[in-house]
Amino acid sequence: MKLATLNNGRRDGRLVVVSRDLRHATDAAPVAATMQQLIEDWDARAPGLQSLYEMLNAGRGVEHFAFDPAQAMSPLPRTHQFVDASAFLNHGNIMEEAYKLDVKKTPGIPVLVQRQSDDFCGPCDDYPLHSEADNGDFEGEFAVVMADTPMASPPEACAAQIRLVMILNDVSLRAHLFRELQMGFGFINAKPATVFGPVAVTPDELGEGWGADGRIHLEMRVSRNGQWFGHPNGREMDWSFGELLARLALNRNLRAGTILGTGTVSNRAAREVGSACLAEKRALEKITTGDSSTPFLTWGDRLRFEVLGADGQSIFGAIDHRFVPFKAGA
Amino acid sequence: MKLATLNNGRRDGRLVVVSRDLRHATDAAPVAATMQQLIEDWDARAPGLQSLYEMLNAGRGVEHFAFDPAQAMSPLPRTHQFVDASAFLNHGNIMEEAYKLDVKKTPGIPVLVQRQSDDFCGPCDDYPLHSEADNGDFEGEFAVVMADTPMASPPEACAAQIRLVMILNDVSLRAHLFRELQMGFGFINAKPATVFGPVAVTPDELGEGWGADGRIHLEMRVSRNGQWFGHPNGREMDWSFGELLARLALNRNLRAGTILGTGTVSNRAAREVGSACLAEKRALEKITTGDSSTPFLTWGDRLRFEVLGADGQSIFGAIDHRFVPFKAGA
Repeated sequence: MKLATLNNGRRDGRLVVVSRDLRHATDAAPVAATMQQLIEDWDARAPGLQSLYEMLNAGRGVEHFAFDPAQAMSPLPRTHQFVDASAFLNHGNIMEEAYKLDVKKTPGIPVLVQRQSDDFCGPCDDYPLHSEADNGDFEGEFAVVMADTPMASPPEACAAQIRLVMILNDVSLRAHLFRELQMGFGFINAKPATVFGPVAVTPDELGEGWGADGRIHLEMRVSRNGQWFGHPNGREMDWSFGELLARLALNRNLRAGTILGTGTVSNRAAREVGSACLAEKRALEKITTGDSSTPFLTWGDRLRFEVLGADGQSIFGAIDHRFVPFKAGA
Repeated sequence: MKLATLNNGRRDGRLVVVSRDLRHATDAAPVAATMQQLIEDWDARAPGLQSLYEMLNAGRGVEHFAFDPAQAMSPLPRTHQFVDASAFLNHGNIMEEAYKLDVKKTPGIPVLVQRQSDDFCGPCDDYPLHSEADNGDFEGEFAVVMADTPMASPPEACAAQIRLVMILNDVSLRAHLFRELQMGFGFINAKPATVFGPVAVTPDELGEGWGADGRIHLEMRVSRNGQWFGHPNGREMDWSFGELLARLALNRNLRAGTILGTGTVSNRAAREVGSACLAEKRALEKITTGDSSTPFLTWGDRLRFEVLGADGQSIFGAIDHRFVPFKAGA
């Protein structure tokens, strides 16, 4: 099943069911008016939406309209918890090598970062960047959305609470990030609003891309200003989603709507398959030549993130957005 | 005006108006069914609740019932953003001296920590502590609740968006905290569910305690198992609320319901007025004697946090809770 939230001027938007080919949509109300309502009461409400989805794909029995990702908000326009992992150790290793960072990780314990979830940005909305001097960057990632998950649930029980999969651009401001990382208390100014792809999908929509090892075996295709930038594969994640979630739930409940991101997708063959963020490419340049030539985000930059299934069709739709100067009151 | 959220079995509870003396309450519906609904639409809905509050205090014109803090959830049982500051440098200085920590702060930039907001705990609910070996601790703090605050708002504009004041016990697990602080990515396992006081109040309820300097000039009275533990005053905060909020809003919007905590209240005269957390008392012991004698939280410990106004009456009601063993499925 594929779902999206259209902008209707309200904070939580309007939930719609989207056809597998992303061409059509139908209203999810009265089964569920918003994604938050659905995720809180998934078992009762999802079957009704699945029926709508099947009718929509068959092209009969349900009113529908053209799905326009430009009208989409993030599938959850806001939620009550967002945690981003750094689950591809390869990325951290490249960064630590290039910048001689001394990150004191504990072997076996994944890096998880608590993040804000009050104001996500739409997938095709212009993105207001406060300042070019902040060394703006993107990070192409996968994420999962959780139903209620009790404290101390083991990995398999956590994985069983995954309801939806999404993609995101975890916009990052590197000028703040290094300062905040050194300080130890996580990210505040380093992480402005996060942007999720237009469509959230149930794991079965990934087919064999939803691996039995609890990882996503699909490529995150990133382009900058129409030029290929990278297509790293999610399969090299160093922990499964269940393992990441169990660490997060060690001593607290995760309530419905919790989003867990993977961290920027990164592969050991990064020099061939490319990266999903500027910082990693810049770090590889620095390791090779002593300097970085790829520029950070500039106003006017257009970024696109998309994942294709085995059939070559877009699974989540594309994040396709421009970075623009911030204007107060705009 | 004073407001609380009673547990009605729903995730966001039921909003009630509470009398100034905390003895009576009246239903806030149909003006606002939940605190979230109120904070999103404050200007339209607050006047109606203010009228109910005045009638309730006068003891006429409105149906009411006895207010029982044991039935209260956190005033916002969940929200979309919770950020906790470490705004009393005195506390950090003591910790750094005792444990030879090298925290790389940038002078002038306050420490802010992004936190989870999906599952707050009620003020009198038994608190399930996963393990005594986690070195459990409490932190008595003040917090403010925000209306929508646009990106890049200056301190005065941020302060003008403060709608409510609360108290909290920011439960902390020190065994995880030092490990996570060293790693740099903020707190995950170090911070289980947070507990807010039963009643949220508009700033005017603090009287002269709501200082013209944007700080709270009131004592956070903490007792452990019925014994005085400390009563540090909020006036020594090293930044005003407006300054803290402006740093947070530097490059992102803060949406309605955002909670900003002060960090554990701490005074330079800590040896006389006491502390609002165990770690600070233990650190002072270590500085003096080379060792710490005050134990971390043990199962069965009962903690109480309360703030009295100039008239000696409780402003927010008390957080008064016991720490109990965690039982899966309980």
